[in-house]
Amino acid sequence: MIGSGYMGKVHAAAFRAAASVFDLSATPSLEMLADIDEETARIAGQALGASRTTGDWRALVADPDIDLVDITAPNLLHEEMALAAIEAGKNVYCEKPLAPTSAGSKRMVDAAEAAGIRTMTGFNYLKNPITALAKEIIEGGEIGEVFAMRGWHFEDYMLDPETLVNPWRFDPHSGDGVTADLGSHIISMARYLVGPIESVTADRDIVIPQRELDGEMRPVEVADQFRALIRFEDGAKGTLEASWIAPGRKMAIGVEVWGTAGSLYFDFERLNELHLYTTDQPRGREGFKLILAGPAHQDFASFTPAPGHQLSFNDLKVIEVRDLVEGMMATNPPPWPDFREAWEVQRVVDAILRSSADRGWATIADS
Amino acid sequence: MIGSGYMGKVHAAAFRAAASVFDLSATPSLEMLADIDEETARIAGQALGASRTTGDWRALVADPDIDLVDITAPNLLHEEMALAAIEAGKNVYCEKPLAPTSAGSKRMVDAAEAAGIRTMTGFNYLKNPITALAKEIIEGGEIGEVFAMRGWHFEDYMLDPETLVNPWRFDPHSGDGVTADLGSHIISMARYLVGPIESVTADRDIVIPQRELDGEMRPVEVADQFRALIRFEDGAKGTLEASWIAPGRKMAIGVEVWGTAGSLYFDFERLNELHLYTTDQPRGREGFKLILAGPAHQDFASFTPAPGHQLSFNDLKVIEVRDLVEGMMATNPPPWPDFREAWEVQRVVDAILRSSADRGWATIADS
Amino acid sequence: MIGSGYMGKVHAAAFRAAASVFDLSATPSLEMLADIDEETARIAGQALGASRTTGDWRALVADPDIDLVDITAPNLLHEEMALAAIEAGKNVYCEKPLAPTSAGSKRMVDAAEAAGIRTMTGFNYLKNPITALAKEIIEGGEIGEVFAMRGWHFEDYMLDPETLVNPWRFDPHSGDGVTADLGSHIISMARYLVGPIESVTADRDIVIPQRELDGEMRPVEVADQFRALIRFEDGAKGTLEASWIAPGRKMAIGVEVWGTAGSLYFDFERLNELHLYTTDQPRGREGFKLILAGPAHQDFASFTPAPGHQLSFNDLKVIEVRDLVEGMMATNPPPWPDFREAWEVQRVVDAILRSSADRGWATIADS
Amino acid sequence: MIGSGYMGKVHAAAFRAAASVFDLSATPSLEMLADIDEETARIAGQALGASRTTGDWRALVADPDIDLVDITAPNLLHEEMALAAIEAGKNVYCEKPLAPTSAGSKRMVDAAEAAGIRTMTGFNYLKNPITALAKEIIEGGEIGEVFAMRGWHFEDYMLDPETLVNPWRFDPHSGDGVTADLGSHIISMARYLVGPIESVTADRDIVIPQRELDGEMRPVEVADQFRALIRFEDGAKGTLEASWIAPGRKMAIGVEVWGTAGSLYFDFERLNELHLYTTDQPRGREGFKLILAGPAHQDFASFTPAPGHQLSFNDLKVIEVRDLVEGMMATNPPPWPDFREAWEVQRVVDAILRSSADRGWATIADS
Repeated sequence: MIGSGYMGKVHAAAFRAAASVFDLSATPSLEMLADIDEETARIAGQALGASRTTGDWRALVADPDIDLVDITAPNLLHEEMALAAIEAGKNVYCEKPLAPTSAGSKRMVDAAEAAGIRTMTGFNYLKNPITALAKEIIEGGEIGEVFAMRGWHFEDYMLDPETLVNPWRFDPHSGDGVTADLGSHIISMARYLVGPIESVTADRDIVIPQRELDGEMRPVEVADQFRALIRFEDGAKGTLEASWIAPGRKMAIGVEVWGTAGSLYFDFERLNELHLYTTDQPRGREGFKLILAGPAHQDFASFTPAPGHQLSFNDLKVIEVRDLVEGMMATNPPPWPDFREAWEVQRVVDAILRSSADRGWATIADS
Repeated sequence: MIGSGYMGKVHAAAFRAAASVFDLSATPSLEMLADIDEETARIAGQALGASRTTGDWRALVADPDIDLVDITAPNLLHEEMALAAIEAGKNVYCEKPLAPTSAGSKRMVDAAEAAGIRTMTGFNYLKNPITALAKEIIEGGEIGEVFAMRGWHFEDYMLDPETLVNPWRFDPHSGDGVTADLGSHIISMARYLVGPIESVTADRDIVIPQRELDGEMRPVEVADQFRALIRFEDGAKGTLEASWIAPGRKMAIGVEVWGTAGSLYFDFERLNELHLYTTDQPRGREGFKLILAGPAHQDFASFTPAPGHQLSFNDLKVIEVRDLVEGMMATNPPPWPDFREAWEVQRVVDAILRSSADRGWATIADS
Repeated sequence: MIGSGYMGKVHAAAFRAAASVFDLSATPSLEMLADIDEETARIAGQALGASRTTGDWRALVADPDIDLVDITAPNLLHEEMALAAIEAGKNVYCEKPLAPTSAGSKRMVDAAEAAGIRTMTGFNYLKNPITALAKEIIEGGEIGEVFAMRGWHFEDYMLDPETLVNPWRFDPHSGDGVTADLGSHIISMARYLVGPIESVTADRDIVIPQRELDGEMRPVEVADQFRALIRFEDGAKGTLEASWIAPGRKMAIGVEVWGTAGSLYFDFERLNELHLYTTDQPRGREGFKLILAGPAHQDFASFTPAPGHQLSFNDLKVIEVRDLVEGMMATNPPPWPDFREAWEVQRVVDAILRSSADRGWATIADS
Repeated sequence: MIGSGYMGKVHAAAFRAAASVFDLSATPSLEMLADIDEETARIAGQALGASRTTGDWRALVADPDIDLVDITAPNLLHEEMALAAIEAGKNVYCEKPLAPTSAGSKRMVDAAEAAGIRTMTGFNYLKNPITALAKEIIEGGEIGEVFAMRGWHFEDYMLDPETLVNPWRFDPHSGDGVTADLGSHIISMARYLVGPIESVTADRDIVIPQRELDGEMRPVEVADQFRALIRFEDGAKGTLEASWIAPGRKMAIGVEVWGTAGSLYFDFERLNELHLYTTDQPRGREGFKLILAGPAHQDFASFTPAPGHQLSFNDLKVIEVRDLVEGMMATNPPPWPDFREAWEVQRVVDAILRSSADRGWATIADS
């Protein structure tokens, strides 16, 4: 693992928990932890239970005992690290967004595919059993033919201009603020549930023009919010929105999907719930049904056999790690979402930025 | 109509609206209004559109042009007024609770039945299309055999000891405070949806020992809240609770009914909604369904053809008046809930008080 | 009144109820009803309580005993009728949308303003006490400076291609389907709560290509849904969406407003509720507050003194009629929203259509 | 650890996770696992990561390398095992209910206290950060003086008479069905949040008279549901209810607490939410506030620094284990809830049974 910040801790815990929750084909062990210098790595390694530590991530990548390189370092460094790992023949697990631009993401995809390397990216919300349920409902035709989708991801951790949660997110070279951070989540969700996006028209903007960075107020260059109209390749229409300054919202990533025979929606501020409406209900008994996650839904039973005994946000990462570990077995299909999928997401991010700048529709194929 | 206070106004408006909303068999007109004195009656009569007014309710009762006497005066006066009206051969519409005791209620029932008079009592929450829907679901066996019910009626209008909404409610001769006021509503609901109650064990209590009445702090003798365990005649079990000091609750009259094949619940702080769960749902698709009131439900379409275009609390009274007017037609069945039903409710109120005093189970048949 | 369809009935009932609920400066009476022919008018007039009836709306407009002409006829006829009424010196109350195009609306505005005529348009959702509460919160600065708004109006009454609720809505000369019908409501709400809109980029589309009209399947030319990104003149950003094929939605007109110090949202499928979040809450006690409509809010107390005793959709029209009647008094300010406001709404509708056709941003000033 | 069923697995996972989530004073290790026979223990031990296994729980209790005995075996065996462990000088962690009767529980308390042994019982719902928040609000006087509480625990896992989740729960020697199973949870919650209970009057009943046990339909002797009125020692009143046949409910353990200055409620089917109402809100802005669990609340931040990123049911057990491990350190205060608290809960269970049998109020002091 490279990096031991917030996501590093989440990954370490998820690897441990995955071995406990699931009957894995292989037991992952944190063979080595790399961080910015020896001392930082040593302290973090102790806390996270790493067998060895290093201040040089290139040493980690080159180490013969390492099968999988897990990149939780800042966005800006993903590409260089992943390319080195691929070159060394290691499989790679990398946090989203894959790279600040789709060009960078594409180089990572090309390298991995050329080398026959297995990759995975951390779009954890896709791993929620509720997401799987939504997909099952849609693919089974339970709501008919999908013609519209609304997607949003709203939080408010950047609302206060004087308290920055992740200062490095304001470096425009790391990506366009919320567009990269939360936008990539909701784009991945739209693609997963409804399908490829053909074009977008978007409006991203900076609401808080100055923030306290490194002790002084500085101008902000990255987006606080964006809104986009989208067209899917299959003709469905919709909206995608993201904000990190949505007052009162804490983990409001949600989706509403409309079909000719019904609709469904969820919002992960209640991450164990899905609402379903179908048009085949008897007259006077029509209504949205509130489905609580339970053992009938994918992966839930591995955590608890009891319906309504809810899963946590952290558990989504545990499921992701299970998919990762299983997907690394040569005899299994590769894991998903892989770098190619992350690149596809990034292409939509790029189209949102291009559309915002040009004030017109942008086609994903041009990204 | 006798009385022109809050309920007098609600009745007057409901009579007018009923003629507009429904295609009534007869058009009601407010022929005469009686109040405490000529002047009060005159002013109120003008506001409410009465043809004539009087300061002597006995004159109203005796008037040959009056077909129906509508009693909205304080509880304490219901019996005397109703008995006089019955003696004069008038049909009677009387607000709940019918009388402060079941003995008084019984005298009213006996007089009315002996005289062949049609009567009605104002348990307006029974008239909600959602209540009718609940009954239809239960009676149709959609939730199987009912084995339990929970009922509550919580408001907070008496929470502040220095601001009394209806000072006369603290006169113990008018009934036992919340037990009479809100308790009678939730008892009528339990009887309507599940059936006759066999016995209760209850605990009523005075939480705020002194209140500002007539400008000074005085000891309180009537209940602020009660809770009761109940057994229905058919064997189902349950609870009934009422409070007028439930902080934050404004019109929380609700019911939860459990059957062997499902359950339903509603709370009229959202008076256009009912939640339904049935055990026959496919695995992984189980959930409570939120049904919005609409034209498929009883009486709703008379107000609007559009589902989800909600009815108001006042509309419940309009439906009640329609039932009253139709029930007064000799060619129709008599209206419901009549005095007998109101007496049955009062018997349960009495049993709650008796049980609270005796600290044991009380049988309704003994009331 | 001209027209006696659904809206005619709602208006007639609202006029009656307004006189009962409010202490009006003048008591409205339905002096004359005009409809398509004498017989239709006569039958409807009886049902609605009109003093006189006519098959010729021009006769009504010319009648010297008429002070106010109330137009509830189909959209297509609004302009001709209103212009005639204005020419005859009558005040005019007209249902939304005012006219199929902003040009038509503008002619109505110009005529009314030149003649010094008072006008009003029926954007009833603006009259909800909850809407007034939202405006009070925003204008009082309780959520800081507004930087974003999301607005939607979703219903599903046109979802079934074989059951049309209002067939005339599929005539493209009457306006662009849902864009005119529900779109005008949510646009009026956005303008009311946040302010004038500067520009839009939109995507309207026809989802169900053929519908059963007049007994046979015919191609559809008007929109089933649209989504738009908007920019307000003061710099706030947002979205507006409308659909009449949103599965399961019955009266989901809602708004979410974000400010630098908080946010609020409501959805009128629960038309007596508003959710409020402010950033000044103590740590660990932050949350959205659910406010139930009550007598502390504008106009509510005229219906009932009891908080939580909910108002109905029809009650919104009653408040609207009160505003109309009071606004017709020469000594009072004119009513609102007037024709000019309805034209402003229509300009946004036109911009949405223009933007959809051109696939780019459209400026309202160009409409 | 003795026992490797459902609760054994939950415990094993919680011990592992606790060491990862919290910075523990000692790292727990599963030194030995005992089960019904050698083979069962061996297989389970492998799965759960035990260092050694045994088919003889007495061997485990006697082992000098064991510091803490964790009992997850069926209720009926708790007493014998705990007494042996105490005699051997081991600290004991035991699942609820402590013993089938309060007499048995008392023997365990007395033995532990005489031996100076530290004990803990698994009332996991008390460990929810939301429970801690409720307690903090109550103790801080934020809702004034508490005068009422409503508590419930409803699930439906025993609704189907042909599918039994835990057949041993139907052995009357193990406790009275739901009264022991879910009842003990809600009693512990009432005691924790409001205080000691003085007396109860209850009605427990068997709804499904026969169930399929060991392949044939047999009469049932234990309760499916109970309802109780309660009086707290400090004068507050309330209700406690539990059912394992509440159709549609999956983990509905909830509480509503009313005070003279406000109220709060929660239901753990949404285990990361609490609703709070206080009477000090400005006029027209009164409402229940929905508080989402976050890092401002006790223990939450150890799982994730992000508010709204919800905890799971399993996480409650992780917090419990942290309390256990810390409470076993001689330099720390002992853990809570200990055996004494579990005995106090059991006394209320006994009073509920006694009251149901006698059909009258039962005083806890008599248990």
